[in-house]
Amino acid sequence: MGKIVCFGELMLRLNPEGYLRIPQADCFLASYAGGEANVAVSLANYGEHAMFVTMVPDNPLGQSAINSIRHWGVDVSWMKKGGERLGIYFVEKGASQRASRVVYDRKYSSVATSTVADYDWDEIFDGADWFHFTGITPALSDSLVEVCIKACKAAKEKGITISCDLNYRKNLWSKEKAGKVMSELVPYVDVLIANEEDAQDVFGIKAENTDLIGGKISDEGYVEVAKKLIERFGCKKVAITLRGSISASVNNWAGLLYEDGKAYKSKNYTIDIVDRVGGGDSFGGGLIYAIHNGFAAQDTIEFAVAASCLKHTIEFDFNMVSVDEVKKLMSGDGSGRVQR
Amino acid sequence: MGKIVCFGELMLRLNPEGYLRIPQADCFLASYAGGEANVAVSLANYGEHAMFVTMVPDNPLGQSAINSIRHWGVDVSWMKKGGERLGIYFVEKGASQRASRVVYDRKYSSVATSTVADYDWDEIFDGADWFHFTGITPALSDSLVEVCIKACKAAKEKGITISCDLNYRKNLWSKEKAGKVMSELVPYVDVLIANEEDAQDVFGIKAENTDLIGGKISDEGYVEVAKKLIERFGCKKVAITLRGSISASVNNWAGLLYEDGKAYKSKNYTIDIVDRVGGGDSFGGGLIYAIHNGFAAQDTIEFAVAASCLKHTIEFDFNMVSVDEVKKLMSGDGSGRVQR
Amino acid sequence: MGKIVCFGELMLRLNPEGYLRIPQADCFLASYAGGEANVAVSLANYGEHAMFVTMVPDNPLGQSAINSIRHWGVDVSWMKKGGERLGIYFVEKGASQRASRVVYDRKYSSVATSTVADYDWDEIFDGADWFHFTGITPALSDSLVEVCIKACKAAKEKGITISCDLNYRKNLWSKEKAGKVMSELVPYVDVLIANEEDAQDVFGIKAENTDLIGGKISDEGYVEVAKKLIERFGCKKVAITLRGSISASVNNWAGLLYEDGKAYKSKNYTIDIVDRVGGGDSFGGGLIYAIHNGFAAQDTIEFAVAASCLKHTIEFDFNMVSVDEVKKLMSGDGSGRVQR
Amino acid sequence: MGKIVCFGELMLRLNPEGYLRIPQADCFLASYAGGEANVAVSLANYGEHAMFVTMVPDNPLGQSAINSIRHWGVDVSWMKKGGERLGIYFVEKGASQRASRVVYDRKYSSVATSTVADYDWDEIFDGADWFHFTGITPALSDSLVEVCIKACKAAKEKGITISCDLNYRKNLWSKEKAGKVMSELVPYVDVLIANEEDAQDVFGIKAENTDLIGGKISDEGYVEVAKKLIERFGCKKVAITLRGSISASVNNWAGLLYEDGKAYKSKNYTIDIVDRVGGGDSFGGGLIYAIHNGFAAQDTIEFAVAASCLKHTIEFDFNMVSVDEVKKLMSGDGSGRVQR
Amino acid sequence: MGKIVCFGELMLRLNPEGYLRIPQADCFLASYAGGEANVAVSLANYGEHAMFVTMVPDNPLGQSAINSIRHWGVDVSWMKKGGERLGIYFVEKGASQRASRVVYDRKYSSVATSTVADYDWDEIFDGADWFHFTGITPALSDSLVEVCIKACKAAKEKGITISCDLNYRKNLWSKEKAGKVMSELVPYVDVLIANEEDAQDVFGIKAENTDLIGGKISDEGYVEVAKKLIERFGCKKVAITLRGSISASVNNWAGLLYEDGKAYKSKNYTIDIVDRVGGGDSFGGGLIYAIHNGFAAQDTIEFAVAASCLKHTIEFDFNMVSVDEVKKLMSGDGSGRVQR
Amino acid sequence: MGKIVCFGELMLRLNPEGYLRIPQADCFLASYAGGEANVAVSLANYGEHAMFVTMVPDNPLGQSAINSIRHWGVDVSWMKKGGERLGIYFVEKGASQRASRVVYDRKYSSVATSTVADYDWDEIFDGADWFHFTGITPALSDSLVEVCIKACKAAKEKGITISCDLNYRKNLWSKEKAGKVMSELVPYVDVLIANEEDAQDVFGIKAENTDLIGGKISDEGYVEVAKKLIERFGCKKVAITLRGSISASVNNWAGLLYEDGKAYKSKNYTIDIVDRVGGGDSFGGGLIYAIHNGFAAQDTIEFAVAASCLKHTIEFDFNMVSVDEVKKLMSGDGSGRVQR
Repeated sequence: MGKIVCFGELMLRLNPEGYLRIPQADCFLASYAGGEANVAVSLANYGEHAMFVTMVPDNPLGQSAINSIRHWGVDVSWMKKGGERLGIYFVEKGASQRASRVVYDRKYSSVATSTVADYDWDEIFDGADWFHFTGITPALSDSLVEVCIKACKAAKEKGITISCDLNYRKNLWSKEKAGKVMSELVPYVDVLIANEEDAQDVFGIKAENTDLIGGKISDEGYVEVAKKLIERFGCKKVAITLRGSISASVNNWAGLLYEDGKAYKSKNYTIDIVDRVGGGDSFGGGLIYAIHNGFAAQDTIEFAVAASCLKHTIEFDFNMVSVDEVKKLMSGDGSGRVQR
Repeated sequence: MGKIVCFGELMLRLNPEGYLRIPQADCFLASYAGGEANVAVSLANYGEHAMFVTMVPDNPLGQSAINSIRHWGVDVSWMKKGGERLGIYFVEKGASQRASRVVYDRKYSSVATSTVADYDWDEIFDGADWFHFTGITPALSDSLVEVCIKACKAAKEKGITISCDLNYRKNLWSKEKAGKVMSELVPYVDVLIANEEDAQDVFGIKAENTDLIGGKISDEGYVEVAKKLIERFGCKKVAITLRGSISASVNNWAGLLYEDGKAYKSKNYTIDIVDRVGGGDSFGGGLIYAIHNGFAAQDTIEFAVAASCLKHTIEFDFNMVSVDEVKKLMSGDGSGRVQR
Repeated sequence: MGKIVCFGELMLRLNPEGYLRIPQADCFLASYAGGEANVAVSLANYGEHAMFVTMVPDNPLGQSAINSIRHWGVDVSWMKKGGERLGIYFVEKGASQRASRVVYDRKYSSVATSTVADYDWDEIFDGADWFHFTGITPALSDSLVEVCIKACKAAKEKGITISCDLNYRKNLWSKEKAGKVMSELVPYVDVLIANEEDAQDVFGIKAENTDLIGGKISDEGYVEVAKKLIERFGCKKVAITLRGSISASVNNWAGLLYEDGKAYKSKNYTIDIVDRVGGGDSFGGGLIYAIHNGFAAQDTIEFAVAASCLKHTIEFDFNMVSVDEVKKLMSGDGSGRVQR
Repeated sequence: MGKIVCFGELMLRLNPEGYLRIPQADCFLASYAGGEANVAVSLANYGEHAMFVTMVPDNPLGQSAINSIRHWGVDVSWMKKGGERLGIYFVEKGASQRASRVVYDRKYSSVATSTVADYDWDEIFDGADWFHFTGITPALSDSLVEVCIKACKAAKEKGITISCDLNYRKNLWSKEKAGKVMSELVPYVDVLIANEEDAQDVFGIKAENTDLIGGKISDEGYVEVAKKLIERFGCKKVAITLRGSISASVNNWAGLLYEDGKAYKSKNYTIDIVDRVGGGDSFGGGLIYAIHNGFAAQDTIEFAVAASCLKHTIEFDFNMVSVDEVKKLMSGDGSGRVQR
Repeated sequence: MGKIVCFGELMLRLNPEGYLRIPQADCFLASYAGGEANVAVSLANYGEHAMFVTMVPDNPLGQSAINSIRHWGVDVSWMKKGGERLGIYFVEKGASQRASRVVYDRKYSSVATSTVADYDWDEIFDGADWFHFTGITPALSDSLVEVCIKACKAAKEKGITISCDLNYRKNLWSKEKAGKVMSELVPYVDVLIANEEDAQDVFGIKAENTDLIGGKISDEGYVEVAKKLIERFGCKKVAITLRGSISASVNNWAGLLYEDGKAYKSKNYTIDIVDRVGGGDSFGGGLIYAIHNGFAAQDTIEFAVAASCLKHTIEFDFNMVSVDEVKKLMSGDGSGRVQR
Repeated sequence: MGKIVCFGELMLRLNPEGYLRIPQADCFLASYAGGEANVAVSLANYGEHAMFVTMVPDNPLGQSAINSIRHWGVDVSWMKKGGERLGIYFVEKGASQRASRVVYDRKYSSVATSTVADYDWDEIFDGADWFHFTGITPALSDSLVEVCIKACKAAKEKGITISCDLNYRKNLWSKEKAGKVMSELVPYVDVLIANEEDAQDVFGIKAENTDLIGGKISDEGYVEVAKKLIERFGCKKVAITLRGSISASVNNWAGLLYEDGKAYKSKNYTIDIVDRVGGGDSFGGGLIYAIHNGFAAQDTIEFAVAASCLKHTIEFDFNMVSVDEVKKLMSGDGSGRVQR
C-alpha cells in the first residue's frame, strides 16, 4: 500500500491541568495537535506510512512540533521550516454542564502564511495513494485555499484517493466563505467526512428532526444529508459522526457511512469523557485506515466509531490506540475489565 | 448601584491532589476560601463592586489571603492585619460512596479573636447598599456575635439590604447556641438563605416528607419551611438550596425562592461533580447578584441555581464564571458542546 | 486475638498520572503493592496486628517496599532481604470503554527465587491465629509452591486458620498448572475467596447463566460454584466477589458468602471508579477482619463488600479506610454528603 | 505622594520546569510579565500606588494578565481590553555554560496594535507624580512610538517625573531604529536607566576597558558613559546596572548612579541565580522607590542593587520582596541564616 | 543496647516547591518534622531502636504524623492521641542572599497542651538507655517544662544517659525565660549539644572573636564556651556545631566535641545546600549514634559532622543516610562520583 | 556522508524528582537512555543520519523506548521487538558531598538475551560509514560478546570506521572478564574513547600522578595512557575525558585526543551540574560528529568537550544541543548571558 499524505496545521496545544479554568492555571500542559496531524498520528499508530506536510517556524517550538509527531512514527520529511510563528490554542476542559472552551491564537502562523511555492506536490505525493485534508486548512488563509486546490489537482492527476473532513470552524471564516471555498474543493474529494453540524453550517444541508442542544438526533435525517452531499458533489463515500452531547462529561457517539446508495449505521457508545478534543479526527483516522485496508462498509464504520470512542478516553488530541484495541471494542468488549 | 460588603473569615484551604486521602498526601494544593469571601469573589466576577471585611495575621499567609481575592477584583481595603493565625481547613475530596471530608484547624484565628473595636462600620458601609454574612461568622466566637449584631444595626440604620446564609456547622457550635444567636440576628435580615438541613438544625423547622440520606426531597415541605421562616423572623425573601446527594460524585441540585407569599422553584440539574465545596456560597453569590440587578423572581432563582450548578464543575471554593456563562445555562444549554 | 500473617510478593507499582497511557507518560507514580500485602495493610488499618512475610532485594527499592507497609503499621519483622530484584508492575488506568492495562515485569524477583530454607514458619507463626496467601504466590515459581505447602502444613499443625484468595493470573501460569497446584493447596484452606472468574479458570467450575463480558451475573450460579468448591475441598467458608463491569469507569459490586450450607448475599453497589486495582484484596481484608472479629455471616459479607466498595474510590492498591467508615457505608449511608 | 504610572506590555511568560529545554517540556509554567509591569509590581510590593497602563485582548488570557498584577496590588483600572492577542514569550532557563534562552511570540499583540486614541493621558496621570516606560515599548510598533511621545509630553506638562529604562532588544528593532527613536524620547526623561550593553547598542556610547563576554567590567568606563548620556540628553540622573556574567548560574551584580556630576557605586554581589529574568526591572523598581521616597544618592543605588540582587533568587519576573527585606540586605546581612 | 527515647513535638511542615516564596505557592509540599523526631528518624536509619514520644490530635493529620516516622522504623507505640491540633510550620527555602524563612503556626498544639499526667515515664523508659530532648520542648508551654523535668528525673533514677540540644528559638520564648528554665534542666544532661548561637542566647556565654553575620568563627572561642558549659552544669560532653553561613546556598559546616578536658575538632565541609532545615538535628542523631556505639571522641565528632553534612543535601528535615554512607564521607570521599 | 550505526541497550531510566532519594520518591521521572543510544541522539541532533540497533520487548515499554529516540530523529528501523523485558535503571541525583547513585535492574533484558541470529549486519550497515558501541554492551551477556565481535568483523570488511567507548561498569562484569573481552574487541576499533578510570580498570593501564578521589589529575599521565592503548591495540585515535570531581554539584571537565603521535588537550570547564549522567556519551557523540565531519584534531577535542560540558546542564541522558550551540561555547562564550 502507498503512503498517506496529510496536509494542514500543527499547533501547540496548551491546557490547564485537570478541570482548571484558564485564569486559574499556573501551568499549561503542552502538547501538539491539529486536525490533519491527528489523523496522521492515528494512521501511524495503526502501522500505516503516514506523512504530514506543513510549515513550522525555525525555532524551538517549531522543532518541538516536528518531534511531537515523529515521536509516533509519522514521516516528517516534508515539514518545512519558515514563517513567523507556531499557532497556539488553549483548551479549557469542561465538565458536566460547563462546556469545554477553546481559545485560538493561531493567526499569522507559519503554515497560514505559506504559499503555493512552498510545496512540491509531485515530490510529496511520490509513493502516495491517499491525500487527506480538512476544511480548517483553507479557512486559515486565502493562500492556503490556493495550496489546497493545487494539492487536490495534483492528487487527482496521480489517481490518489482524496479525503476531506469538513470541520467547520466559525471563528476562522463565515459560513458564506466556507460554503464558497468548500464547494470548489469538495468536487475533488472521494471520501467526505462531516460531523452532525458541518453540512448545515457549510452547505446549508440540514438534517430533519434533529435538535442538537436538546440532544435529539435523527439517523434518517443524516442519511438524507449524506445522499444530498453525494448528489451535489459526486463523492464516493460520505461518513458522518453523530455526537449526542448529554453533557461535557457524557456523550453518545455513533456514525454512519453512506456509499453506493446504502447507509451503514454503527453501534452507539455512551462515553465517560476523558478528553474529547480530537474525537472527530480519530474517526477520520479510523475511517481512512479501514477503507485503505479494504474493510467492508459495515466494518469500516464500526472501526471508525470504535476508534474514536476510545479516543475520548485518552488525553490530548492524538489517538493512542492499536488496531487490536479497536477491533476488541468493535467485537463488543467495552466492559473495561482489567487487561493483565 | 452601591457596593456589596461581605464579612467573615478567609482561610487557607489545603487539599490533597485529586482523590487522595489526607494520609496519602505529599503535597496540599493551596487556595484561600471562606463562606462570605466566596460570595464576594462571585460578585466581583459578575462585575459588582464587592468588598470583603475580615482580619488576617500580619505574616506571609495573611498577605496571601489578601492577594487571593484581590486577584479576582475584590476590594480588600478593609482586610485588617492582626491577631495570631490564619484559619486552615483541609479538604479530602470524596468519590462515589466515599464522602468528602473537611478537617478544620480554624480555632484561634485572627478574625475569631477580633473584636467590635476592630471594625468601623460607618466607614466600611460608605457607598454600600448590601451587607452579607453567614451563620459561620457568629459561630466562630462570642466576640464575633457582637460584631455581627453591631454590623447589622449599622446596616439597618443606613437602609442597607442584609442577606444571611444560615450555614450551620455542627463542629463550631451546638444547635442550641446557634438557634439562640441566629434568632437574635435573623430579624435584621432581608434575604435569608438556607440549605436543605439548616432550618431544622438551627431553628428546628423540619421539612415534611424528606429523607436526606435516602435522597428524598419534598419541594412542598421546603415551601412550608420558607413560609415559617418568614413568619417567624419577618425576612422579605427566603431562598433554599435543595441538594439531592446521590453520591459524592453525582448530585441533584435545585433551589426555591419564596417571596411575597409565592414560591419559585428552579430547574433541577444532575451534576457530575468536580468540587462541590463552596456550592452553597455560589448560590448566595448568584442570588444576591440577581436581586441587586432587579431580576424577576423566577429569573433570580434560576440564575442562582445555574450559577451554583456551574460552581460544582470548578475546582476550589471560588466560582469562576461570568454572567454570560450563567445565562447560557439558564437558557437551557447544558449540553457541554465545545466552545471554540 | 492473635496476629494475622500474610505471605506473598510486594512489588513496585508504577502508573502514569491520571488517564495517560504508558507511552504518554513522562513520570510514573510510585507505590508498592501486592495481593497479600494489600490485605495486610487493610487489616493494619482496622487495628489488627498484621504481619507481612516476603523477600525483597537489599537495595533502596527493597527498603522502600518495607517502608511502604511499615508506614501503615504492618509488622515487617519478617521481610527478609536477598535475591536480585523487586518485581515491578505498570498500571495504565482505563476509562469508559478503554480497559485498564497491567504490564508485569515481576519475573526473577527476590521472593520468586526464595526457597523453603528462607522462612522459619515456627517463628513466623509465633502468636498468630490466621494465615493468608493467594494463588499468585505459588504461581510465581515452583520453589514458592513448596514454600506455600510448607507454610500451610505448619499453620495447620498450630491450629491457625488459613485463608486463600484464588486470584488466577493467566500470564503467570496456565489453567492446568494452576488447577494442579491449587488442588494441592486448597484442602488446607478454611476460608476460600474467589472472584467471578477464578473458580472456572482454576478448577473448571462454571457459574450457570452468567456472561461476564455482556455484564450478566447470576447469583444462583455462584451459590452453586461455592457449594461445589466446599464439596471438593472441604473449606469451611467460601466467599465470592461479583463484579459487574459496565465499563472501566462504572462497575457493579457485590459478594456472597457461603457457609454451613447457607448463602449470604450482600447489597449491590454501583461505583464510580477511582482505582479498581486492589479491589479484590480489600474484599479479602474486610472478610478476614469480620470473621476474625466474630461478625455474623450477613454482617461479614456486608463488611467485606462495603470495605471493597470504598477501596474503588481510593488511589493505589491499599485500602485506606477505618472500621467506622466501612460500618457507616454498611449501615446505608453512601450519599457522599461532605463530612465536616 | 502621588501614584506612579507604568506603561508597556504585559505578556504571558511560559517556561519549562526547572532546567528543561523547550523541546523537552510537557508543561509550561505560566506567569505574566513585562518590563514596565515588573516595575509596577515591585513598587506595589513596596507600598506605592502603582498603576499599570496597557491593552490586553478580551479573552481569558487577557483577563488572566489583569488578575496577575491586581493580585499584587497594582492599580489595573487603565488596563484596556481590545486587540487580537496577548504577547507570549518562552523562557528556557540556562545553567552554568548554557545560556538562558528567550523565544518571543509577541508580534501582533493588543498593545502593539493599540494607538494614540486608546489612551487618555489626562485621566491616566490624574494624581500621578511619576511616569515610567522602557525602550521595549516604542520598539513594539510605530504606533507605540507615537503613544510614548504623547505620554511623555503630557507628563512633562504636568510636571511629572519621567523615568525610562533603555532596555535594548535586538530582535525587536535595529540599533539604528532604536537610536533614532530613543533620541527623540530620552530628552523628556529625568531618570535614565541602562544596563552594561544598552548605551552602546542604542547610542553607540561605549564603555572603555570593558569586555562583557570575557567578564571584565570597568567602573570608570561606565561613569563616562553616564556622563555622556547626561550631556547628550539632559537627564537629571543616570543609573547603570553592571552585570558580570560568570556563567548562567553565577553572576556578579552591581550598579552606579550618576547625578549632579558625581558617581555613586554600589556594593557588588555575587549571586547564585534562581531566575535572572526581570533582574533589570527590579533594579528600576528599587531605584524609583528610593528616589520617590527621597533616599540619598548612595542609599538610592544601594537600595536598587540590593532589591535586584534579591530578585535573582526569586522565580519569575516579579520581585516579591518588601522594603524591610531590601534594607536588611543593604545593611550587610546576606548571610542567608534561616529567619525563624 | 537499649532503646533511645526522644520526646518533643512532631509538626506538619509545609513548604512551597523549589525556591518559591509563600505568597507564590499554589501547593505546599507536606512532610512531618520536629527537632527530636528528626533525631529519632536518624537513629532508626542507623539501625537503632528509636522511640518517639509525643501527643498528636486524633484526626487524619495526627495519624499522618504517626505514619510519617513509623515509615522509617521509629517506634511509635508512645505517640498518644489527644488535644486539639497538630502544630504546623511553613518553610520558604532561601537562596543566595535571600534567607530561608520559617513561619510557625504551632501554638495550641496537642503536645504543647499535654500535661504530666499524659506520660508514664516508667513504662516509656522500659528497656531504654538513652533519653533525648531539646530546648524547644520546654519552650512550648509551662506544662511541658514540668513534663521535661519529670522525664529527666525518671531517666536519672534509671541511670539512663540524657542528651539535650539547646536549640534556642527566639519566637517561642525570651532569652530570660529560656535561661531560667534550661538552667534547671541542663544539670540533668550528660551530653549537651548547641549551635554557634545557643550558648550565648540561653546562658549568655559568648564565643570570643566571632562574628556570625560577618562569617567569622573562632574555634578557640567555642572551646571556651564548651568548657564554661561543663563547669556551670556538670555535663560530661558538650558538642557544638559551627555553621559559617556564606549565603543561603553555601555554608561551611564543622563541629567540636569537648570531653574530659579535651577538645576534638572535626573536618570542615563547604556545602552546596539542598535543604538545611534539620541540619542541627542530624548532627545530634549522628552524635548520639556514635557515642551509643562507643566511637572514639574524634570519630564521634567526625561521624556527627559528616552525617549532618549529608543532611544538607537531602530534602526535608529527616536525614536519610545509612551508617555506611556517613563513614564513606568521614573517610574522605566527598568527591560525589556517581555510585553505579 | 554515510549513516552512523550505534548498537547497545536502551533502558527505561527512572529518577526521583529533584534531589529526592529513592526511598523518598512518590513518583519517578521516566526517560529512556543507554550509552550508545545517547550517542545516537547526540548525532541526530547534529543533523547526522544516526541509526540505533537493539532489541526491546513487544509491550508498551518497548514501544516507548522506540518512540523516545524516534522523537529526536534517530532511525529506529532496526530496533527489533522480542525478549522478555526492558532494562531499567534508577538514578538518584546527588548534591554536594552526596554522590549520585545508580541502581541497575537491567538483567534479563531483551537485548541482553538476544543472539547473533537476531542481527543482519549486512543489512544494518547498508549505507553506513561508522559503527559505534561501548564496553557496556559485551558486558551484558556472553551472547552479546559474540554479537559485538560479529558486528566488528562485518564493519571491518565493509571499511566502516569503528568507535568504542570502554565504559567499564564494575557491577556488570569483573575487571578480569572485561579485560579479556575488550582485548578481543578493541583491535577492531579505530577510535577508542575512555574516561579517567577505564583504562586502568579494564587494561590495568594507570595514569601516573593522579588521585581521583583527591581530585588530582595529571594530563601527562593520561597522554601516556593514550600512547599505551594505541601501542597495545593499534587504534588510530584515543580520546580520554578527564573529570575532576570536586563534588556532586561541581566538576571540572576536559579531554584529550591522541593521534598520529600527538596529544591535543582541550580547555577545562568548571561546571555547575544539572545532570551529569550521559556526560561521557555526549563526549562520544561530539567526538564522532567532529571526526565524521573532518574537523582538525584540536577542534575535534574542543567540540567534544564543549558538547559534553553543555550536556551536564541538561536533564536526563540525551544531549539536546545543536552544532551552533556547541560552537558558540567552543569559541569562548560560556558567560551564560540570556539569548533573546
